[in-house]
Amino acid sequence: MMKDTVTKIQGIDASLLKQAQARLDKLTKPKDSLGRLEEFAQRLVAITGNTMPDIDKKVVFTFAGDHGVAEEGVSAFPKEVTREMVLNFINKGAAINVLARHAGADVVVVDIGVDLDFLNDPDIPPFSTCEIGGKIAFGKNGVAFISNKVVYGTQNISKWPAMTRKEAEQCVQTGIDLAIGYSKQGYSMFGTGDMGIANTTPSSAIAALLTGREVKDVTGRGTGIDGHAFEHKIRVIEQAIALNKPDPSDPIDVLAKVGGAEIGGITGLILGCASQKRPVVIDGLISTAGALVAYFIEPKTKDYMFASHQSVEIGHRVMLDKMGLTPILDLNLRLGEGTGAVLAMFLIEAGLKIYKEMATFGEAGVSEKKQG
Amino acid sequence: MMKDTVTKIQGIDASLLKQAQARLDKLTKPKDSLGRLEEFAQRLVAITGNTMPDIDKKVVFTFAGDHGVAEEGVSAFPKEVTREMVLNFINKGAAINVLARHAGADVVVVDIGVDLDFLNDPDIPPFSTCEIGGKIAFGKNGVAFISNKVVYGTQNISKWPAMTRKEAEQCVQTGIDLAIGYSKQGYSMFGTGDMGIANTTPSSAIAALLTGREVKDVTGRGTGIDGHAFEHKIRVIEQAIALNKPDPSDPIDVLAKVGGAEIGGITGLILGCASQKRPVVIDGLISTAGALVAYFIEPKTKDYMFASHQSVEIGHRVMLDKMGLTPILDLNLRLGEGTGAVLAMFLIEAGLKIYKEMATFGEAGVSEKKQG
Repeated sequence: MMKDTVTKIQGIDASLLKQAQARLDKLTKPKDSLGRLEEFAQRLVAITGNTMPDIDKKVVFTFAGDHGVAEEGVSAFPKEVTREMVLNFINKGAAINVLARHAGADVVVVDIGVDLDFLNDPDIPPFSTCEIGGKIAFGKNGVAFISNKVVYGTQNISKWPAMTRKEAEQCVQTGIDLAIGYSKQGYSMFGTGDMGIANTTPSSAIAALLTGREVKDVTGRGTGIDGHAFEHKIRVIEQAIALNKPDPSDPIDVLAKVGGAEIGGITGLILGCASQKRPVVIDGLISTAGALVAYFIEPKTKDYMFASHQSVEIGHRVMLDKMGLTPILDLNLRLGEGTGAVLAMFLIEAGLKIYKEMATFGEAGVSEKKQG
Repeated sequence: MMKDTVTKIQGIDASLLKQAQARLDKLTKPKDSLGRLEEFAQRLVAITGNTMPDIDKKVVFTFAGDHGVAEEGVSAFPKEVTREMVLNFINKGAAINVLARHAGADVVVVDIGVDLDFLNDPDIPPFSTCEIGGKIAFGKNGVAFISNKVVYGTQNISKWPAMTRKEAEQCVQTGIDLAIGYSKQGYSMFGTGDMGIANTTPSSAIAALLTGREVKDVTGRGTGIDGHAFEHKIRVIEQAIALNKPDPSDPIDVLAKVGGAEIGGITGLILGCASQKRPVVIDGLISTAGALVAYFIEPKTKDYMFASHQSVEIGHRVMLDKMGLTPILDLNLRLGEGTGAVLAMFLIEAGLKIYKEMATFGEAGVSEKKQG
């Protein structure tokens, strides 16, 4: 099934970029004066294959997973936080809830790899069967929580592979199913997000392997670890790579051996969006690790990605450069959850509204630039 | 009257920044992980003097003026465009209309120095007396057009002073009156914008004089002039400075001799906002020239300013650096009108919503960071 989706992915039609530019050049403004907003409009036209695309419904997926490597002390937060934050998402108290509401996007939290059984958790609203697969529960004001667990946390990558290859493929398939399912429900812009204590560790491992850079050049301080723990984090990642020997030419092998369930979900979401010709806005370090895996599976996925922001984490820029993506925002964010993605959605939509709603020189009776 | 307003301006209370930070540190996210969004929230608390400020109504002012120096061929667009664009604003076809609507801000267009009489223009809706002064007309869906003209265009600064000192003061007073008037009407966030063919020329002149940099280091290509016209633009600015000899220690003298009416209006709006403890979001090059004049009149005005974006125009960054302001966005914009200001408003508000709406660790029952 994953293969079928990947085969379906087509690059964008570059002639549509030019067609969109021709309209932008007729609008009552100096040529190119709205900079990247114009680029966003052009890309949305080419991505959707529609010269007057609509962005009706927006959604951000926050994939949650646990990481065995947390026991190595690579994170500043205890592992209990994963469950507590899932409840916080459902109760609309987290940053992603606030910012998604501000941007007009729905939030879908996906348990793809948390080391807990939420189905019998008394603090979670009742689950029902989800069309897309798994079980779905709705929290305050309609926040969707989908339980589609592939693993109860990954293994500690400094000792074993994170997952089996089959599990990694299942994570990717879950993301694909969500992209296709929500596309069918009329969602026209997607965002990626993550939640998982210690997940900058597997993300930096993926960054090192797929960009060919040294671990120390792609590893940051995550939620805020100090000097000693930071040195240890680098050694843990180096050890994980040395022990598991992932094959950099096989992105699923990299994902399985040193990745994470939520990273695989993000990879799948991007593959699914590309197959459905839907724009997908990539959040920070963890999301970009998922995007990089998708890019190595099928480079055409890049045509559908928007890099929402430049994270504080150093590995982030290295991965964006590898894919040739330029971040939209630079606000010193390092939270994840999809927070950067929903903020960037506002700006991408701004570009589309410029394209669709501004008057042309002819319509407004405004004189054009002098010749010569 | 201008002096009374300036005397009223107080710096922010730095203890409120810390008080806001204390709340931000209790929210369910790693400390400082929302970067500049947290800075925005802190500043809004300190600016308003309210630990739970409301941003209810937002407004952007697009000040319009003509420039005698346009006859020197320093702009790519003909002067007729000023009137045509005013009509475009009123009919909601311009970029500022589209982006302000997207950001939830009202648009007020102010004729402060256009070389035309709009009061008898058959294409403009009927005017009525405006409480704040001048006459007001309402276009499509309530776009306000205020006619409060100080000059019928400025003089060609390469030959004469742009305005008299009294006219420059009147422009500033008009901006002050608008800030105070709209504050009384319940507006809680202000944006600056401009429209005026050739107005990058006086803006670069102001930038050179008040930052002490050479003209060539603060002059760009405006709406898109070519190499020859660009060299000519630099010489025109140098000539304007040599001829008029503005006193850099007297910002009103600089504004009068080499500035513009819309730049003076922007200066006044900022002084008025600071006196009313209202945040004011500064657009690009022209707005920042107005902001720099305000800053030299009273440096405490800086506490109330947000630098919305980094324009393509090179003089822009030089002026922001002089004031110690860091731009929020960098999207290669160079349009003006207030377009960058309204886009940044969305992000500033995002910071406030994070501060007000996120759950604390205690409320959400989320474990805090491990000690040590």
